[in-house]
Amino acid sequence: MGIQWTLSAGEIEKESFRIIFEETQNTPLAKLPPAEWKIARRLIHTTADLHIADTLVFSGNPIKAGIEALLSASPIFCDSKMIRSGLSMQKLQSINPDYSETHLLCSISDSDVIEKAQKENRTRALCSVEKNKDKLDNAIVLIGNAPLALAQICQYVLDGLVKPALIVGMPVGFVNVVESKELLTQCPVPYISLLGRRGGSALAVTTLHAIMENILK
Amino acid sequence: MGIQWTLSAGEIEKESFRIIFEETQNTPLAKLPPAEWKIARRLIHTTADLHIADTLVFSGNPIKAGIEALLSASPIFCDSKMIRSGLSMQKLQSINPDYSETHLLCSISDSDVIEKAQKENRTRALCSVEKNKDKLDNAIVLIGNAPLALAQICQYVLDGLVKPALIVGMPVGFVNVVESKELLTQCPVPYISLLGRRGGSALAVTTLHAIMENILK
Repeated sequence: MGIQWTLSAGEIEKESFRIIFEETQNTPLAKLPPAEWKIARRLIHTTADLHIADTLVFSGNPIKAGIEALLSASPIFCDSKMIRSGLSMQKLQSINPDYSETHLLCSISDSDVIEKAQKENRTRALCSVEKNKDKLDNAIVLIGNAPLALAQICQYVLDGLVKPALIVGMPVGFVNVVESKELLTQCPVPYISLLGRRGGSALAVTTLHAIMENILK
Repeated sequence: MGIQWTLSAGEIEKESFRIIFEETQNTPLAKLPPAEWKIARRLIHTTADLHIADTLVFSGNPIKAGIEALLSASPIFCDSKMIRSGLSMQKLQSINPDYSETHLLCSISDSDVIEKAQKENRTRALCSVEKNKDKLDNAIVLIGNAPLALAQICQYVLDGLVKPALIVGMPVGFVNVVESKELLTQCPVPYISLLGRRGGSALAVTTLHAIMENILK
């Protein structure tokens, strides 16, 4: 089959979802409830990896928590610029017109954060969490890159200092990643995570977009 | 092992690369030449998937072509905002101080592109390529999302209309993706691709960052 030039974005998405549904019918994913399935489906759609959702976990009714936070225009902490730019402001504003760029908390490239990280020989991600500590209550936290950012927020939660509305904990990599996700599983807050090493900015973004599907469609 | 809080970003990267090296020693990746290995290593680093580079292909001396294009501050076409925001302007300017935001060609959210796509019921990605057609000669093309963007650029190349310096063809998904990469393999331009369905914005970005390693270190 050659290139199908004339498909619209909506048609491509529909056909992609049909293929994903078909190819996961004999897997445990087929047994997920509808809202959880929407997330698994989008994770597969984003990576074209039929096994990406195999380690997906939910705790504390996180989809309901995410929906409520979105409806009340909760701020969204982003651990990377790729997350911030990947989020659809159009969708956010369709959910709540109050949403604006100022709701997207992303300090990873702020000059004070870069300076502090260099001076203290720590990661920028860690310093960017510290900078936003006072804004994390009732926030949606999206982590797709930096395990230390996730670990620091989990530590704040465990110490009773902050209480986010929802944590999407999907850092990726080989150092501190598995450990940061284990810390997340100890936290008494709603969370969605991909256990193990896998994750990524696109995965954190698509998880929130999948939650939005429950409101927008 | 618990969280290693005090590691710097450089130390985390070094340890990650050590683990990746160790875990790929008995695979065909261990036989890659140094510059190609740098790309495979970063693809694995970005996804934490040891198999992501299994379908990596190179054609037309693409790393050399990419290095030359970067050194002469060639424009960089990005098919998504996530690619544009993921690229390190600091690294680009370290390679050539002429680099600025105007070198990053990304029209996917331009109002005229959105309007045209809606009016003609086509994808925004396709319309954004058409808008930048005159700027693709000697450009670096990064595709991590939209197969139709890749297919359209390949068609321009095959029709002799444009000649990019390098194409990183890594769209992701279930529709038009495999086909667009097959079209790329027919193009007489330097390219790097991940055959099959896999790809992503982060993978296209990291490929160019891996090429930069040959200049910056």
